[in-house]
Amino acid sequence: MFSSTDQWLTRKILAIAGNPSIGLVIGRDADRSTPPNGSKPSTTVVISDRRTLAKLALDPEVAFGDAYADGKIQIRGDMVRFLEDVLRTMQDTAKKRMRFAQIRSWWLDWLENNSARGSRKNIHRHYDLSNDFYKLWLDERMVYTCAYFPTASASLEDAQVAKMDHVCRKLRLQPREKVVEAGCGWGALALHMAKRYGAAVRAFNISHEQIAYAREQAKREGLAGRVEFVEDDYRNISGRQDVFVSVGMLEHVGLNHYEEFGRTIHRTIGDWGRGLVHFIGRNRPYPFSPWIRKRIFPGAYPPTLREVSRVFEPWNFSVLDVENLQMHYAKTLEHWLNRFEASVERVSQMFGPEFARAWRLYLAGSLASFRTGGLQLFQIAFAGANCRDIPWTRAHIYEPQQSVEERKWMHATR
Amino acid sequence: MFSSTDQWLTRKILAIAGNPSIGLVIGRDADRSTPPNGSKPSTTVVISDRRTLAKLALDPEVAFGDAYADGKIQIRGDMVRFLEDVLRTMQDTAKKRMRFAQIRSWWLDWLENNSARGSRKNIHRHYDLSNDFYKLWLDERMVYTCAYFPTASASLEDAQVAKMDHVCRKLRLQPREKVVEAGCGWGALALHMAKRYGAAVRAFNISHEQIAYAREQAKREGLAGRVEFVEDDYRNISGRQDVFVSVGMLEHVGLNHYEEFGRTIHRTIGDWGRGLVHFIGRNRPYPFSPWIRKRIFPGAYPPTLREVSRVFEPWNFSVLDVENLQMHYAKTLEHWLNRFEASVERVSQMFGPEFARAWRLYLAGSLASFRTGGLQLFQIAFAGANCRDIPWTRAHIYEPQQSVEERKWMHATR
Repeated sequence: MFSSTDQWLTRKILAIAGNPSIGLVIGRDADRSTPPNGSKPSTTVVISDRRTLAKLALDPEVAFGDAYADGKIQIRGDMVRFLEDVLRTMQDTAKKRMRFAQIRSWWLDWLENNSARGSRKNIHRHYDLSNDFYKLWLDERMVYTCAYFPTASASLEDAQVAKMDHVCRKLRLQPREKVVEAGCGWGALALHMAKRYGAAVRAFNISHEQIAYAREQAKREGLAGRVEFVEDDYRNISGRQDVFVSVGMLEHVGLNHYEEFGRTIHRTIGDWGRGLVHFIGRNRPYPFSPWIRKRIFPGAYPPTLREVSRVFEPWNFSVLDVENLQMHYAKTLEHWLNRFEASVERVSQMFGPEFARAWRLYLAGSLASFRTGGLQLFQIAFAGANCRDIPWTRAHIYEPQQSVEERKWMHATR
Repeated sequence: MFSSTDQWLTRKILAIAGNPSIGLVIGRDADRSTPPNGSKPSTTVVISDRRTLAKLALDPEVAFGDAYADGKIQIRGDMVRFLEDVLRTMQDTAKKRMRFAQIRSWWLDWLENNSARGSRKNIHRHYDLSNDFYKLWLDERMVYTCAYFPTASASLEDAQVAKMDHVCRKLRLQPREKVVEAGCGWGALALHMAKRYGAAVRAFNISHEQIAYAREQAKREGLAGRVEFVEDDYRNISGRQDVFVSVGMLEHVGLNHYEEFGRTIHRTIGDWGRGLVHFIGRNRPYPFSPWIRKRIFPGAYPPTLREVSRVFEPWNFSVLDVENLQMHYAKTLEHWLNRFEASVERVSQMFGPEFARAWRLYLAGSLASFRTGGLQLFQIAFAGANCRDIPWTRAHIYEPQQSVEERKWMHATR
């Protein structure tokens, strides 16, 4: 039975969330749901006890994530749709929570600061979990960034290859060009650039597990002579290169370090080279959910285009092309979540059920965020102020596969 | 003969310009040039008298433009190449002049402020010069913005049509959609959208001459029922529309009015519509040359992408696509300058030789600025936060002509 305190808390929680059309029930009263507007909700959130209810009222985002991971909250119905509904209604109340969100965000910024040392700790916590774990639900090449689906029905494996080609085509990568990659994950893009485009790649990463895996792959594919994997911070990148590329790392650089990041790029490609950064961003400034920052991605932040201009403006870089692949990340996450669910038992055995539930929530929440427009995926191609290799139009990006660059390189190696 | 004062002034002027490889000679000594580094300069600047030399040393940019217009400075050699050289070397000294440039810019901002009334004055001065004048050197459709050259050898007429299609394709314009255009020039894009895409267009402009011409064209082409030309300020745009478009007007809005501009867009398309803005911008903040502001474009400013985010961020607009067409504006200006030179006698008869020289300098200087990377041309496609009409990829923009939208509409009208 609902006590009047429970009812007050329930109303408060629903108000914070902008009164989404969901049912909220407590533990043993699981039959008695409370539709806020009398409408029949498509999802019901079952809260195991009053203590969790109180925590939710105090700090909804963190308490919800933690209680879901601990099994003290259950979601009956379509979890992604539930999260979409809540994210939509929460947009309306976001302004009210803005101040608190900012203050907490500064506090977390300090705790999780992305200095060379802080970054190593932050990156270790996420990316060094275990290669076997990521193999369970990523594509065969282990690409852990937004894919590019030429059509919505493309497979995840094809879409990840298409993404790598999309990046290389935007850069108009030429045989024997020197590329430096900042944050190379398990090495798929670096290997692709060398194998398919004939580039000479130096790829940096501070995740030990990922670098070890990438080196193994390079050896296996006979590319060790053309791709060098360096276990080091992006700040230590040195030497002149033709091209700078960074896919899915800027989120971990931290707002305070954008000028430093830009300095690294400028030191690398000067006023003559070209580059591409690919990252999760936002339409307007707002930090990641504090639960995501605490449990999943310490130190991460999704910048707006205005914020990210700190990387380019001080160095007179020319922004040539910005593409928003928001829908492609939603599609990528659909694939990841489906594969994750298919392996959830195995994940539970590896890290325990709390971990499995937390990661389900992270993947489902990210999917819901991209679907509702809370998160964006930006690809920015840019060039030094005096670069002369700027393509006349972008039409070459959309020519049929196996043309231009690929043909050129295959020709050169024959 | 050079006096020691002349030599001192000459050295000072060349130093301000970053010591470009040019010759500087005074009036009757036109044979004796002074190559700064002993190298043979490709261009020689002939200054008629000491008074002009002194003015140049005090306020180089304004004095140079005014003296060139007055015939007190002549340029022997390739004028555009000369301007490119000077713009390149001046980039290095830009930081030194930054403070003075900023203070003067604030002063001019105040003088030329883009309030509804100020805008009317500023726009009148440039765009109401005379339709017959612009007809001398624009394409047949009177499009006075950057064209889009599918190949570098396309004609200006074809490239202006291609630009209009490029804009419509980025917007995925559909038959019977409602479009509002802010700053419609002589109406070419509004007419194109109605004729080729079946859109219903309301087009705003505060230039009386342009609106009169546009209405005439609409009548002539039998499109008066589908395109309404409104002689009014963008701030007075009202009513819900599907699409907002503005090509070559943001430069005249003024930094202080970007949020207001964004508010107008949001009032028009809400969270569900889409839009495109096309404008001259910069890699890093710097006002237009004070001579350009005084003599050619009062109140104009080329924003960076960071500055222009004030239009989008407060309204939660999603930036979908940014394209930099810098090289296309250089090509457009080549065409305009060539046509202008072919009609320069006629221009002199219409407005006098000072005017003709001033406009030659304006066109040649703009061409040189785009070639040297001092100016950029940004096209930004965006959508309301809840817009569902976002194309899956940009491939449709690059499909062969006469496909997609055009076919659809021709089908609908048959």
